[in-house]
Amino acid sequence: MSEEIERQTRAILRGDRLAITRGITKVENEKEGWDELLSRLYRHSGEAYRIGVTGPPGAGKSTITQKLIAYYREHNKNVGVIAVDPTSPFTGGAILGDRVRMQSESMNEGVFIRSMATRGNLGGLNTKAQDVADLLDAAGFGIIIMETVGVGQSELDVADAADTTVVVLVPESGDSIQAMKSGLMEIADLFVMNKSDRDGADQAVSALKTILTMRITHANDQWHPDVIRTVGTTGKGIDILAQRIDHHHHFMTEHGLFQKRQTHREEQRVRELAEELLSKSFWTEERSTLLKELAPKISARDISPQEAALHLTTHEVGAIE
Amino acid sequence: MSEEIERQTRAILRGDRLAITRGITKVENEKEGWDELLSRLYRHSGEAYRIGVTGPPGAGKSTITQKLIAYYREHNKNVGVIAVDPTSPFTGGAILGDRVRMQSESMNEGVFIRSMATRGNLGGLNTKAQDVADLLDAAGFGIIIMETVGVGQSELDVADAADTTVVVLVPESGDSIQAMKSGLMEIADLFVMNKSDRDGADQAVSALKTILTMRITHANDQWHPDVIRTVGTTGKGIDILAQRIDHHHHFMTEHGLFQKRQTHREEQRVRELAEELLSKSFWTEERSTLLKELAPKISARDISPQEAALHLTTHEVGAIE
Repeated sequence: MSEEIERQTRAILRGDRLAITRGITKVENEKEGWDELLSRLYRHSGEAYRIGVTGPPGAGKSTITQKLIAYYREHNKNVGVIAVDPTSPFTGGAILGDRVRMQSESMNEGVFIRSMATRGNLGGLNTKAQDVADLLDAAGFGIIIMETVGVGQSELDVADAADTTVVVLVPESGDSIQAMKSGLMEIADLFVMNKSDRDGADQAVSALKTILTMRITHANDQWHPDVIRTVGTTGKGIDILAQRIDHHHHFMTEHGLFQKRQTHREEQRVRELAEELLSKSFWTEERSTLLKELAPKISARDISPQEAALHLTTHEVGAIE
Repeated sequence: MSEEIERQTRAILRGDRLAITRGITKVENEKEGWDELLSRLYRHSGEAYRIGVTGPPGAGKSTITQKLIAYYREHNKNVGVIAVDPTSPFTGGAILGDRVRMQSESMNEGVFIRSMATRGNLGGLNTKAQDVADLLDAAGFGIIIMETVGVGQSELDVADAADTTVVVLVPESGDSIQAMKSGLMEIADLFVMNKSDRDGADQAVSALKTILTMRITHANDQWHPDVIRTVGTTGKGIDILAQRIDHHHHFMTEHGLFQKRQTHREEQRVRELAEELLSKSFWTEERSTLLKELAPKISARDISPQEAALHLTTHEVGAIE
């Protein structure tokens, strides 16, 4: 086993695309040896810069991501993309039109694109996206873009996994307000006002800036998010966005925030991983069976969910009458 | 303690609003006795019907919820509303305009509205929303509406907690497509095409219906979601929506699906509760300290997150050198 893992590790480190694809599948599905593989690769990671791209549906995140890929390729950087897509069992692949379009970029040697599902996955999405990012990092992709669909909790978590989080909005009325509601304001390092050739773009940008100034200003060693205007379809503003991402990177490094963010991220990840291990060893067949026996009793209001949980965690399974 | 809990239980059971408010706060923050309180109340719950209202931001979920409240009040039902709102620490209360508007309804004796945050909460949001629903159920609210903001994973989980899940969409182009992407298609028992007086409503409804027929049809004992046209602002279509919710309820009961859904729900909940208890007893001060010591070593690539997690879960803390 270890020999096979060693072979796979070496193949991924030299950038073998098939090995990368298989490695990601192994990690995603937690196939035997996945953790050993990641542990080995991890030592060779840490060089990549991780960019999170998030925002409400329809804001043009895929387009922005595509243009960023093109930008970084022009600057001779290899780009790995993790597209976090909710699984839709019955819609299947047909709906992934923009994802397919994006694949044309991936024909390019220096680009690797992978979709990840938000449902039915083992482990937390956050943890899994980071695992895949580590793998791509070790495989030599200098830029890793994590693009998320929607603005739910799991998407916010993925954004936490990035070094720079870009929130993409559009000038439609109420969008900034919705962004605040969704908690996007707290995670944004940079805002992109996309489709900024549309009517209302000026007002939307000023509204957003006003909201940002309402934020309690801290000392000079705090980063202040700014707003970048783009037109995703033409690529307008993408170079400025990339420069601002770079600027954010330098700012964080200078002020010791980069290290701090990474350490915090790893702490959170180990916490999740440990809880996952804990949960796995807890849910033995006996305990799962007991849970199945308890569920109808709960529906019938014979015992409460709280009592059932306490019962499961405090009693030896053998000791239950 | 038990005496105080008993007093609080009785006050909630007779519908005392202050006791309900305090009870929910206790449950949300897991203050001492919260689980005992819920266990006691649980025996008196099971009468309420739980409706989930979800959909993309801006679709008009709050308006639909308000009109449903009015409908059920006219039909002499008490309505409890759990509005799942992402917390936004810096925007504070100012942004909750529609929530405040909604409060005018809650002046009404038969209505109780409570907001829940999606961030910074103890326990899973899903579990907590169910806890609050149980409490309101025991307090005599015959209809419980769980309204969620956004379409992320946690929102989908909340929808799983409902007996009937209503997905609210608007006729804007691509919205149905986005809904599919977000996994809303799989959880919808009923679709509402809101703002259906707008241009493009007819096409949007047909597009959605076409998508729905693409779904593999099962036997006659399977529910087929349909599309209800509403205009939230005028209340048009709300009575039909309420009737369809009722129809779904009867259909599920007839075909034994209702009991099945509830049992599945309780099983999931106990699973989460048990894992929460497990996690709490695991993260002793010693283990938390160890984690903090490990994090910088991980950032420095001395050890991998997987190794750190394994170390935490398999070693006695005292035994670590």
